[in-house]
Amino acid sequence: MGMVGGGNDAFIGAVHRIAAFMDGKIELVCGAFSANREVSLQSGRDLFIDESRIYPDYKTMLEKEAQLPEGERMDFVTIVTPNFLHYEPAKLAMEAGFDVVVEKPMTVSLEEAKSLQETVERTGKTLCLTHTYSGYPMVKQAKAMVAEGHFGKIRKVVVEYPQGWLSRLTEREGHAGAAWRADPKRSGKSLVMGDIGTHAAHLAEYITGLRIEELCADLTTFVEGRMLDDDGSVLLRFNNGAKGVLMASQISAGEENAVRIRVYGEKGGLEWANEDPNNLIIKMLDIPRQIYRTGNNYIAPYTLSSFATHNTRVPAGHPEGLLESFANIYRNFTATVMAKKEGRTPTPEEMDFPNVYDGVRGMAFIDTVVKSNQSNEKWTKFEV
Amino acid sequence: MGMVGGGNDAFIGAVHRIAAFMDGKIELVCGAFSANREVSLQSGRDLFIDESRIYPDYKTMLEKEAQLPEGERMDFVTIVTPNFLHYEPAKLAMEAGFDVVVEKPMTVSLEEAKSLQETVERTGKTLCLTHTYSGYPMVKQAKAMVAEGHFGKIRKVVVEYPQGWLSRLTEREGHAGAAWRADPKRSGKSLVMGDIGTHAAHLAEYITGLRIEELCADLTTFVEGRMLDDDGSVLLRFNNGAKGVLMASQISAGEENAVRIRVYGEKGGLEWANEDPNNLIIKMLDIPRQIYRTGNNYIAPYTLSSFATHNTRVPAGHPEGLLESFANIYRNFTATVMAKKEGRTPTPEEMDFPNVYDGVRGMAFIDTVVKSNQSNEKWTKFEV
Amino acid sequence: MGMVGGGNDAFIGAVHRIAAFMDGKIELVCGAFSANREVSLQSGRDLFIDESRIYPDYKTMLEKEAQLPEGERMDFVTIVTPNFLHYEPAKLAMEAGFDVVVEKPMTVSLEEAKSLQETVERTGKTLCLTHTYSGYPMVKQAKAMVAEGHFGKIRKVVVEYPQGWLSRLTEREGHAGAAWRADPKRSGKSLVMGDIGTHAAHLAEYITGLRIEELCADLTTFVEGRMLDDDGSVLLRFNNGAKGVLMASQISAGEENAVRIRVYGEKGGLEWANEDPNNLIIKMLDIPRQIYRTGNNYIAPYTLSSFATHNTRVPAGHPEGLLESFANIYRNFTATVMAKKEGRTPTPEEMDFPNVYDGVRGMAFIDTVVKSNQSNEKWTKFEV
Amino acid sequence: MGMVGGGNDAFIGAVHRIAAFMDGKIELVCGAFSANREVSLQSGRDLFIDESRIYPDYKTMLEKEAQLPEGERMDFVTIVTPNFLHYEPAKLAMEAGFDVVVEKPMTVSLEEAKSLQETVERTGKTLCLTHTYSGYPMVKQAKAMVAEGHFGKIRKVVVEYPQGWLSRLTEREGHAGAAWRADPKRSGKSLVMGDIGTHAAHLAEYITGLRIEELCADLTTFVEGRMLDDDGSVLLRFNNGAKGVLMASQISAGEENAVRIRVYGEKGGLEWANEDPNNLIIKMLDIPRQIYRTGNNYIAPYTLSSFATHNTRVPAGHPEGLLESFANIYRNFTATVMAKKEGRTPTPEEMDFPNVYDGVRGMAFIDTVVKSNQSNEKWTKFEV
Repeated sequence: MGMVGGGNDAFIGAVHRIAAFMDGKIELVCGAFSANREVSLQSGRDLFIDESRIYPDYKTMLEKEAQLPEGERMDFVTIVTPNFLHYEPAKLAMEAGFDVVVEKPMTVSLEEAKSLQETVERTGKTLCLTHTYSGYPMVKQAKAMVAEGHFGKIRKVVVEYPQGWLSRLTEREGHAGAAWRADPKRSGKSLVMGDIGTHAAHLAEYITGLRIEELCADLTTFVEGRMLDDDGSVLLRFNNGAKGVLMASQISAGEENAVRIRVYGEKGGLEWANEDPNNLIIKMLDIPRQIYRTGNNYIAPYTLSSFATHNTRVPAGHPEGLLESFANIYRNFTATVMAKKEGRTPTPEEMDFPNVYDGVRGMAFIDTVVKSNQSNEKWTKFEV
Repeated sequence: MGMVGGGNDAFIGAVHRIAAFMDGKIELVCGAFSANREVSLQSGRDLFIDESRIYPDYKTMLEKEAQLPEGERMDFVTIVTPNFLHYEPAKLAMEAGFDVVVEKPMTVSLEEAKSLQETVERTGKTLCLTHTYSGYPMVKQAKAMVAEGHFGKIRKVVVEYPQGWLSRLTEREGHAGAAWRADPKRSGKSLVMGDIGTHAAHLAEYITGLRIEELCADLTTFVEGRMLDDDGSVLLRFNNGAKGVLMASQISAGEENAVRIRVYGEKGGLEWANEDPNNLIIKMLDIPRQIYRTGNNYIAPYTLSSFATHNTRVPAGHPEGLLESFANIYRNFTATVMAKKEGRTPTPEEMDFPNVYDGVRGMAFIDTVVKSNQSNEKWTKFEV
Repeated sequence: MGMVGGGNDAFIGAVHRIAAFMDGKIELVCGAFSANREVSLQSGRDLFIDESRIYPDYKTMLEKEAQLPEGERMDFVTIVTPNFLHYEPAKLAMEAGFDVVVEKPMTVSLEEAKSLQETVERTGKTLCLTHTYSGYPMVKQAKAMVAEGHFGKIRKVVVEYPQGWLSRLTEREGHAGAAWRADPKRSGKSLVMGDIGTHAAHLAEYITGLRIEELCADLTTFVEGRMLDDDGSVLLRFNNGAKGVLMASQISAGEENAVRIRVYGEKGGLEWANEDPNNLIIKMLDIPRQIYRTGNNYIAPYTLSSFATHNTRVPAGHPEGLLESFANIYRNFTATVMAKKEGRTPTPEEMDFPNVYDGVRGMAFIDTVVKSNQSNEKWTKFEV
Repeated sequence: MGMVGGGNDAFIGAVHRIAAFMDGKIELVCGAFSANREVSLQSGRDLFIDESRIYPDYKTMLEKEAQLPEGERMDFVTIVTPNFLHYEPAKLAMEAGFDVVVEKPMTVSLEEAKSLQETVERTGKTLCLTHTYSGYPMVKQAKAMVAEGHFGKIRKVVVEYPQGWLSRLTEREGHAGAAWRADPKRSGKSLVMGDIGTHAAHLAEYITGLRIEELCADLTTFVEGRMLDDDGSVLLRFNNGAKGVLMASQISAGEENAVRIRVYGEKGGLEWANEDPNNLIIKMLDIPRQIYRTGNNYIAPYTLSSFATHNTRVPAGHPEGLLESFANIYRNFTATVMAKKEGRTPTPEEMDFPNVYDGVRGMAFIDTVVKSNQSNEKWTKFEV
């Protein structure tokens, strides 16, 4: 794989690399790690990249790599730059024949997102979007149980992502990641929705299989001097009549990455939390609560879904975490790409990773929330 | 004390009695326990009430008891009838010279509520409203910490009360409590907000000391055949600029009484949950999370508030629950009434129980939510 | 009821009174609350006791009360004095025709305990021992599930009671409760086993229905200047071949009353913890974990045991705690006493409270642990 | 790295590989993956190993690799065979000039262990033992806090490792891992202590810095037909006078890998659990409980230890698990080896991985437990 962004000073690049390396099947062979040539070079060297393949910029990288013979050239590109630098490299990469992995949010506008969708459809390449929470085995188990009707018709969805790290004006305290995220030029229309709200929205739709149809949002900038919102609450209405609430906040002081989702149907509900990801709490009417745990060989009718077991690496009781969920996305993406190369239809488990259509919905979600926030109308249609 | 309602077939009457008896200072001396004379008589006998003081109705009870000499007649009346039968007995009782305890919601309309407020102000009697969650020691500790500025200015409040017991058409399954609650004539304008939403709203205002100023609500009736709503989500705006979300649901299948509140300020946040009531989770920026627990003799600066310790009966590590929180409300109410009788100013700890003003706000909350739900305007003012 | 001990300066007396009053069926009519006449008088007055029935000592109380006509005289005596003052009042009370409630440990020696057993058998009176943890609904559910074979043959029992309140020389810091507990003359042979170890041993035998047959103990006095042990660990062997570990500690700094028991059988295990008493965690082989919770109307095959529901006062999701578990013991004891008076056989649920035989086993447990601790032999027989 | 054992049918080999690959600095270049040539070849191919370096056995591997030029030949050997096949390859590898990673327990006898210690001392090579629980950041934080005297003198240690997967005669059900573990010829003197008890003993000594001096053990074989013990409880006495309990069980039906340790000192205690590894619960006298969590930038005096932060990969709130703790051991081991090669003294953080001396203590622990179990003496000295 090749990497755009992810130099030594970036957190998420390292996460992508660990996730990619974990299963021993992906090698980092080239990169344009930073606009700062020195940082890029040093990052590349630290990663054992041959100096000739540490490129000054992504255009050069795409051009040069495309000229290398297959087998030698990179197989795909991972784009881990700030949001405003996702679109162009992703588009060009696909047009140059490379599959791509893009950090979320996919772009900084719905138009760009739709353009990427068009590029995918035109080039036949695969775009993978790293909505990491959908990579957890127990999230996949939740999705499977909803899909098989375990809870009956879904009525209520509560999804939240509270963080506290932007409770102060962190972007002015020398924190590079905060600085670009809080800058509308590099981040997009909404800080809180772009950075974490889309994760919550994706998780809700991923698990329930439902689509948000309309919403009512209230966005706030609590920290003085900040240029974008840092907190948002959204009432949701889904396409089957279900209702919901989505909360995303970066001023929930003291919270870390407390993603949590609860889904209630006619017959029972489920609860999953990122900070305790190997437990899936099932609350059915009339019977004791159940806790499904990653990696167990339950017997029928409790057998874990193939989507859960396919994405599990260690036996029950040994915790798996963020890096494994991230690695699941990489593993499924590369398996799909490989299958396509081999002319084989990927299995449903292999195709189970967020793609360009999720990215388009994510950008539409941000747009709709921002639009609703500015409106005095109660409900704003969610349209793609 | 005398009791209106609370016959053998009612759940909440028994809770009130246990709460009242617990500290050995309150005796039940009379009652009009049920409109059904047989039920009332049997209930009274089971409670060792002298038959002459088991009254056919509350009017008779008030009239007869008022004629008894002080010391012999009941000291106060507890009203635990369905919502529509709170107003008149409460009003008449105060006018007959009795202090009153009323189950929440205080009445079925804001007008009635305001009339009770007027009655309190006119008669000088004390009205206590049993918002039980405010009776927990760790809720009081939370309130005290907010008040002393521990968290800085409050920015975000998330309060929720999910239940699942009305996931089916329980009111048609012979469940008396469900039947009257789901009947607009006996329950009021909103099932979910009247029954549990007001608890959540009161808890939020009680802990934060803030006032809801405007809100945006979405109410739903999920169960076919039900005459009132069974789920509601509300965006909140508080008088200091804080934002919030209130969720109340009776179709969150599998949930019991999962009241939970989270409050975030500039410097940290707090979390309290009814189903684990002796833990108060404090999450401050930059330091490890802390768990304050009921009944501890912490040293400064962690010393538990006098409001917490005053409302604690057993040493740390021995759980206290609903009945103790309920008993705290009774104990504080009766201490206040006693102080007034003795011509003494009650202490702040004694006066710390929900009163007629909380009741008025509760009814205004229900009204505002219902009005917002019917409106296409995003924001509806919360006015009393 | 009458009370021996439990003056204003004693913690456990208040707990007994709340537990007794809670259901509105027990009244405190007399007492000898303290050896200090002033304390006794003041305590009695605070409890609204007629001054003529605040007695200078328990002998006078027993004598005078026995002379009162039935219906007027106390129905039973509660003894909440320090350990060394349990035996004589209990014995005399039964001989005077009164049933008794005694705090644990029942006496300060096995001989005294056996003498009380003889007195019970001779007089036909009922002795109730307040092993409070056995009063919790989910403990009763655990017992019922073991009894019905849910877990298969029991193999392993881990029971523990860590506290930290004696981490310092508390008994010299003006703490009356610590002072007598740490004094061998008033407390007995072992501090940690007498005060809390017997609770753990009783809980293990109560839930499993097994009997400890031999054990191997290591007792320690960690705090310099203390006259008795403050920590103990014991290997257990049960009569069915099961093995176990019992830990009791009062120097586990930072712990409150963290009683916890785990029981494992051939097919699964259970876990219950005092500080979270309304959850019973069931871990069966091959299926997801289950959490049984107090107060639920589960359907078959999950229906809660009649022993659990009989001892529950409020609906699911409303926590019950120590005082309710304590009140269950009082309620069952008084129901049994009442049944006997009415010539009726008490139901199994009514008879479900710790009795004199549990008290004898408790004293034998303390004796055996102390003997084992002094021995170089690995195993010491547990004999009554 | 080269690998001995760890063919496609082995669980732990895959764990080692993921842990080694994760940081992108270790490559698997050769292996003798299985005694079964076909399995070995297929495993090697699946791992992209050049066929010429998939060796028929470890002797051939060591011989051939030693002949390759530095830079090309493997840098170290990982040995993940059943216990009885650790000793010889480890010894030969070191004698052939290779550093080694060995799965625990290090050998099947104390004599072998001491011989490896002698080999390490003679050859100057580095032996790393994968006691994975010591790789967790919060375990390292616990160790650091004990070392700096946060809890005062340590008094009590409770360490436990309950599992349930051997509740049935799993070794006869076609489970390869169970089969060799339950076979004394391949596993050693004790199943439960060799497989998991040594983890618990290591964790206790690692965190506290104390040494077990004597112990009293009770081992049991609960499952009929099993050739070795499957449950054990041990009373511990440490070199500073602290007492402890160690429990290891494979018949605790329903448990997964519920490693848990509690340590109590004069001033407070700590608690850590493998199934919730990113929380370190700190319970100090007189103040609220604290929860230290992985990856936080706490300010003084709460600053996380450099040993914790050095072993953390992702920000707070993103769970890390077994694979990361395992990878920490690999990373520290290889950093140490690299430092030695570069003639540099490794940092304390780099040298922080279990080594041959831990392995010797582990084997001595097993020996002592087995000896104690067979003895009627209460206490057996722990001697190395």
